[in-house]
Amino acid sequence: MSTAAPRERVHATYWLETGGDPARTAAIIAGEQSSGTFVALAHETAELKERSGARVERLEVIGETGTPSLPGAQPSDRYRQCVLELSWPVENFGPSLTNLMSTIAGNLFELYAVSGLKLTGLRLPPAFTSAFAGPAFGIAGTRQLAGVSQGPLIGTIIKPSIGLSAEETAQQVRELIAGDIDFIKDDELQSDGGRCPFEDRVTAVMRVVNDAAERRGRKAMVAFNITGDLDEMRRRHDFVLAHGGTCVMVCVNSIGLVGAREIGRHTQLPIHGHRAGWGTLYRHPALGWDYAPWQQVWRLAGVDHLHVNGLDNKFTESNASVIAAARAVLAPLNSAAEMIAMPVFSSGQTGRQAAPTYAALGCADLIHTAGGGIFGHPGGVPAGVEALRAAWRAAMAGTPLENEADHTPALRTALGFW
Amino acid sequence: MSTAAPRERVHATYWLETGGDPARTAAIIAGEQSSGTFVALAHETAELKERSGARVERLEVIGETGTPSLPGAQPSDRYRQCVLELSWPVENFGPSLTNLMSTIAGNLFELYAVSGLKLTGLRLPPAFTSAFAGPAFGIAGTRQLAGVSQGPLIGTIIKPSIGLSAEETAQQVRELIAGDIDFIKDDELQSDGGRCPFEDRVTAVMRVVNDAAERRGRKAMVAFNITGDLDEMRRRHDFVLAHGGTCVMVCVNSIGLVGAREIGRHTQLPIHGHRAGWGTLYRHPALGWDYAPWQQVWRLAGVDHLHVNGLDNKFTESNASVIAAARAVLAPLNSAAEMIAMPVFSSGQTGRQAAPTYAALGCADLIHTAGGGIFGHPGGVPAGVEALRAAWRAAMAGTPLENEADHTPALRTALGFW
Repeated sequence: MSTAAPRERVHATYWLETGGDPARTAAIIAGEQSSGTFVALAHETAELKERSGARVERLEVIGETGTPSLPGAQPSDRYRQCVLELSWPVENFGPSLTNLMSTIAGNLFELYAVSGLKLTGLRLPPAFTSAFAGPAFGIAGTRQLAGVSQGPLIGTIIKPSIGLSAEETAQQVRELIAGDIDFIKDDELQSDGGRCPFEDRVTAVMRVVNDAAERRGRKAMVAFNITGDLDEMRRRHDFVLAHGGTCVMVCVNSIGLVGAREIGRHTQLPIHGHRAGWGTLYRHPALGWDYAPWQQVWRLAGVDHLHVNGLDNKFTESNASVIAAARAVLAPLNSAAEMIAMPVFSSGQTGRQAAPTYAALGCADLIHTAGGGIFGHPGGVPAGVEALRAAWRAAMAGTPLENEADHTPALRTALGFW
Repeated sequence: MSTAAPRERVHATYWLETGGDPARTAAIIAGEQSSGTFVALAHETAELKERSGARVERLEVIGETGTPSLPGAQPSDRYRQCVLELSWPVENFGPSLTNLMSTIAGNLFELYAVSGLKLTGLRLPPAFTSAFAGPAFGIAGTRQLAGVSQGPLIGTIIKPSIGLSAEETAQQVRELIAGDIDFIKDDELQSDGGRCPFEDRVTAVMRVVNDAAERRGRKAMVAFNITGDLDEMRRRHDFVLAHGGTCVMVCVNSIGLVGAREIGRHTQLPIHGHRAGWGTLYRHPALGWDYAPWQQVWRLAGVDHLHVNGLDNKFTESNASVIAAARAVLAPLNSAAEMIAMPVFSSGQTGRQAAPTYAALGCADLIHTAGGGIFGHPGGVPAGVEALRAAWRAAMAGTPLENEADHTPALRTALGFW
């Protein structure tokens, strides 16, 4: 491990619910995730605990309920809800993402004293983050490759998700680029199926993309889903690169931290990080992860773009949660490591979300993908893309959509169906 | 992808709760996870749907509630609970664990129509499983390396979890082997920290293990936690192998599927799979995964041992859930691929769990680890190990513990504190 500042500490914050005494439960969690276990041990000396034990930095009771949020826990007549902050010396695990994971989110969610536990915050010190390069492209690198110097990248997703042939996919890409789109991505289900083999798809699509780039002077960014085994992902990345592609996509939960880290090391292209499976980790308010701590590990591994859902989405996530996620992706990890990634907004998106998204973030360093919001335009894809771009121009200028529509007919029409 | 039998289908079963019409919700899930999206699309032809769409194989309403299990879903005055079985043609994703994951457990837990979704079953056809080698050692290989031809491997975990030096760890191992233990594992928190660097630990511990093996004629199996980046894991594996070690451990959720698959390909030793973080995936009854489908992907990746908690454990998991998990680990994946792994029982274990565990499984092909159940014995580690082994001998012979204790004084003493 790195020998730099081993005494610097990692801080993690949890929302905790317990039917036991909160201080006792906090001590159990701290012990279980460091030097302790269920019983006192001869070798667990005071000196060892002081040196290697997790420390309870903060414990604040913020609420109480008569009904436990999760079943199976220690019975009680009241369950107290707390903010719990723990810290660990970096030297316990070294600057290792995988071992960090086992420590901050390992065997603690199922503890008997715990009727609710959510990891809500993570603060990594320079002794940890300095071992990582972070996103190789980030916002600036993505803008440069896509030829979009300001405003969001206007994007969409190939649909149907799966079932199209390589040629049918290329045909859809042709139509999208003719409509002046900035960004196109594979669906997360489409990687290397029998109907649409990866290399056939890249070959067909990049022929269209490269031809168009010669005419347009800028190249549409296509995020090809390379998700697979490590050798497959490296080979697919190299294939995309060799064919002039400018982005690769992975489903981060499906490949896991080792997969993301290896692709982060290998890549010469921005990595588009899809979060399929995220629902299992966050959907219950008393269990799992918030997005803010979770997204940090993928940025450290080198992921450049991270999905954050979208305002007024068609899933169950609230707008507040979406904005908190996007802000987290855009926040530096610490004073020594910015490693900012680019948030990707999707799901039920139209130009109506441009102004509130911009207002909430204070910037347009993002990818905004729309499906129906573009394809549904009576004027076709070009009018759909134009309308979405106009909506962003208005948002960034502080102009109401209605006013902007006065001199953008495509936007006027779009307002009828958005 | 493999061209063998692309039409064979993967079947996944879910416990679903929905405030909408169950048939409509089932169709949404099937569409979202294959060729559909929220709106009808021009390219989504009937032929494409027939070929590539997920199929609803079974939908049975089994209950109803007035309160949704998960927040945020479509409001309703009743939420119906169903068994839903979907199937997909293997050709959609090919024999790829990562893309299988995005398909069966991707963007579906957060759908608006869903107020509860748990993946309860998975049936993979030979067209999928034939691309994998599975555990390289499994039960027979583990028994051979550990020199334990029948009965469980009696094991324990190095404690304190973290904070001991390499030499202190080796001292504990010396004591355990003098007590005739079969199996010892690192804690999941202990990999390569500054206080106990991996190579120092392996060197010190294997000196003890190898010395003892010469005297005993069999070698205690030590599962060294190699969890880390891929190059680190490979290097640590090689280091363990070069020092005569017989097992490596990984935290499967921390390394992810690509990590497990690569170590599965690289390994010349049994892989001990720790499930730290599993609580986030299963703890809520209406969200995430059951163990039975989850453990299959790790066996395919090559994991030989899988943690299943233990009867009367100190966590929140029920005995029924523990036994279902162990049975799943011991069940063949399909008629063409057994790939059986060895279940690992732990947490608050003593000899009192031997008989019910044996009765529930019908075999003793398992690792039974105890901490306090061994260390707490007034006669020390040798007596603790002897008592646990005697309890298993009794369980397998159908002899009550009390009777066995009549001619095993260590067991008689143990019954006083177990």
